[in-house]
Amino acid sequence: MNNLLDQIEPILLMGPGPSNVPSAVYEALARPTIGHLDPVFINIMDGVKEQLRTLFKTENTLTLPISGTGSAGMEACFVNLVEPGDEVLILINGVFGQRMQDVATRLRAQVDTLVYPWGTPVDPNDVRQKLKEKAYKIVAVVHAETSTGVCNPVGIIGEIVKDTPALYLVDAVTSFGGIEVDVDEWGIDAIYSGTQKCLSCPPGLAPASFSDRAVEVIEKRKTKVPNWYLDLSLIIQYWEGAKRAYHHTAPINMIYALYQALALILEETPAAVYQRHMTNHLSLVEGLERLGLEMLVAPEFRLPMLNAVKLPEGLNEGEARKALRMDHKIEIGAGLGPLAGKIWRIGLMGNTSRAENVERILSAMDEILLHD
Amino acid sequence: MNNLLDQIEPILLMGPGPSNVPSAVYEALARPTIGHLDPVFINIMDGVKEQLRTLFKTENTLTLPISGTGSAGMEACFVNLVEPGDEVLILINGVFGQRMQDVATRLRAQVDTLVYPWGTPVDPNDVRQKLKEKAYKIVAVVHAETSTGVCNPVGIIGEIVKDTPALYLVDAVTSFGGIEVDVDEWGIDAIYSGTQKCLSCPPGLAPASFSDRAVEVIEKRKTKVPNWYLDLSLIIQYWEGAKRAYHHTAPINMIYALYQALALILEETPAAVYQRHMTNHLSLVEGLERLGLEMLVAPEFRLPMLNAVKLPEGLNEGEARKALRMDHKIEIGAGLGPLAGKIWRIGLMGNTSRAENVERILSAMDEILLHD
Repeated sequence: MNNLLDQIEPILLMGPGPSNVPSAVYEALARPTIGHLDPVFINIMDGVKEQLRTLFKTENTLTLPISGTGSAGMEACFVNLVEPGDEVLILINGVFGQRMQDVATRLRAQVDTLVYPWGTPVDPNDVRQKLKEKAYKIVAVVHAETSTGVCNPVGIIGEIVKDTPALYLVDAVTSFGGIEVDVDEWGIDAIYSGTQKCLSCPPGLAPASFSDRAVEVIEKRKTKVPNWYLDLSLIIQYWEGAKRAYHHTAPINMIYALYQALALILEETPAAVYQRHMTNHLSLVEGLERLGLEMLVAPEFRLPMLNAVKLPEGLNEGEARKALRMDHKIEIGAGLGPLAGKIWRIGLMGNTSRAENVERILSAMDEILLHD
Repeated sequence: MNNLLDQIEPILLMGPGPSNVPSAVYEALARPTIGHLDPVFINIMDGVKEQLRTLFKTENTLTLPISGTGSAGMEACFVNLVEPGDEVLILINGVFGQRMQDVATRLRAQVDTLVYPWGTPVDPNDVRQKLKEKAYKIVAVVHAETSTGVCNPVGIIGEIVKDTPALYLVDAVTSFGGIEVDVDEWGIDAIYSGTQKCLSCPPGLAPASFSDRAVEVIEKRKTKVPNWYLDLSLIIQYWEGAKRAYHHTAPINMIYALYQALALILEETPAAVYQRHMTNHLSLVEGLERLGLEMLVAPEFRLPMLNAVKLPEGLNEGEARKALRMDHKIEIGAGLGPLAGKIWRIGLMGNTSRAENVERILSAMDEILLHD
């Protein structure tokens, strides 16, 4: 039988994720599957929790990978914390803020929003004002808005939320492992990420962490979590304590891979990893500007791992991206929503963020833009 | 740094799942990650859908792996089909029927149940009677009740449900790939499975299929699905049609592995795979009875892939299972709920269902029971 997997070839993944996976992570992924209650597997689970606490900079007990991709992490945070009628404030400046609004609304929250033009950051002053006007149960924001390349001031907003009773919920899907995320210092109560961005692990898990205050809110719910699969009060019993009661079967091999991916980052040290992301970002931007291209986002709000660059007038962007993929074996991302056809999104995430990759994309883009 | 992954050693997985993964599936899992919108990946997605249709014996367009473990499949089926107040009938004879009741109740369905002693099957006559008394939107049953080793008469119940307007929802987590599952012939409207049972792929995906009638019910919902991550009306746009709109990032490498696992089954042919499961089951039962042990379930209702055997009086089952795991490198499953301490669950699932494995467990059990 014709095996479709033989069509897979190594691609330089410079889109909005997945990023390129190191060989040690593939090796971890392919280790023998063992039981989800096996003592060796439980040791690995405990190891992953500890690694995540280190990288999230938190003491949170409830720190674990959710069994789904990054969006399942978003779903898990909202479905566990929201009860019908709860007041939720969502700060929106791209696709993922919009998605938060959709998720929370489906759970029958009362959702207020602060909306900003795509490519600009959330303004903390507006948040301060809004929090004076109304008591919210949850304030939610995306740290690294993957659809635009904007870094929202999560630390500054955290200072403001701290002065209120609200829980602070942060999407760190694209930021985690690429720029600093300081859960405890920033007063974050619920945070989730994905494995396929700066962790450079295949997609399939959503690392997450919850403050004791968030856990208390979950424990005191008036209604059961309307999602058995993601009910943290049940999942805790598998991930914590002596008993390790079966809830659902963990994605065992994916957890091996996450363990290895986190081990690589901690070995290099988070500080060195963040510096590498910044250095390669600056060198990419310099190169793009040398090619006559302009960045979407103002320098002080740019993400190092997701570079939104404006397209030259008249470029057939679909054809050009196809040429990059087919002739140069490089994947980059198209614009989404109002930015479709207007920008490209060039990822420099995790293991992909390397000087040689910056050179390779710049040289490929040079060729493509010249020949278009 | 001490790498916890080095503690992993090959274990003969004869519990209730995961089962042992063939080397070709590990190789598939470790193929290079590519983009979730890459044309090569879309071909593989299409390939997996076609393979699943073949093994599920269905023409259903909406046939795909849900991005989570088997329990996410259960969640996906209920959350998409149930709206608050809907009448649902759940047939319960073990843990997974109970879980269905919990899932549906959280979604504010009106749940009626038919409950049977653990170790016995659902009686289709009761279902017929119940369906005469009330109009249900959904009738749900577990095909292979992993907690007891009972096979429920899904085909016969399907004939009864067909005569009513109810949708027929079936859990095939443990049956799929080990015994025949005939979705179209049995009139099944929604079905889900898991990858780590008879498909012998690591856990992390839930193959599922939905009839056109189920899709119509989803399309005509009065309320939005209260779960963005599992909303099939959105997921369809990624898995079907020409456009392939981004919803969430698919667990790419897990989908490679599922493709390869299904390719192996289709190559051996489903009929030969089912026969192999039956042959090894019969030989295991014969061996267990030779050791003086008794099966929990009457012969005509036994599952070939999950063998529930009663424990001898006075056995310290925890110690004995530990000896199997530590000295013999074999994992088997304990009893759950009312069967805890009373039975062991011996899996012969997928790639684990081999004559040499039957011999190995029988010889290990012989030693352990003699020395206890």
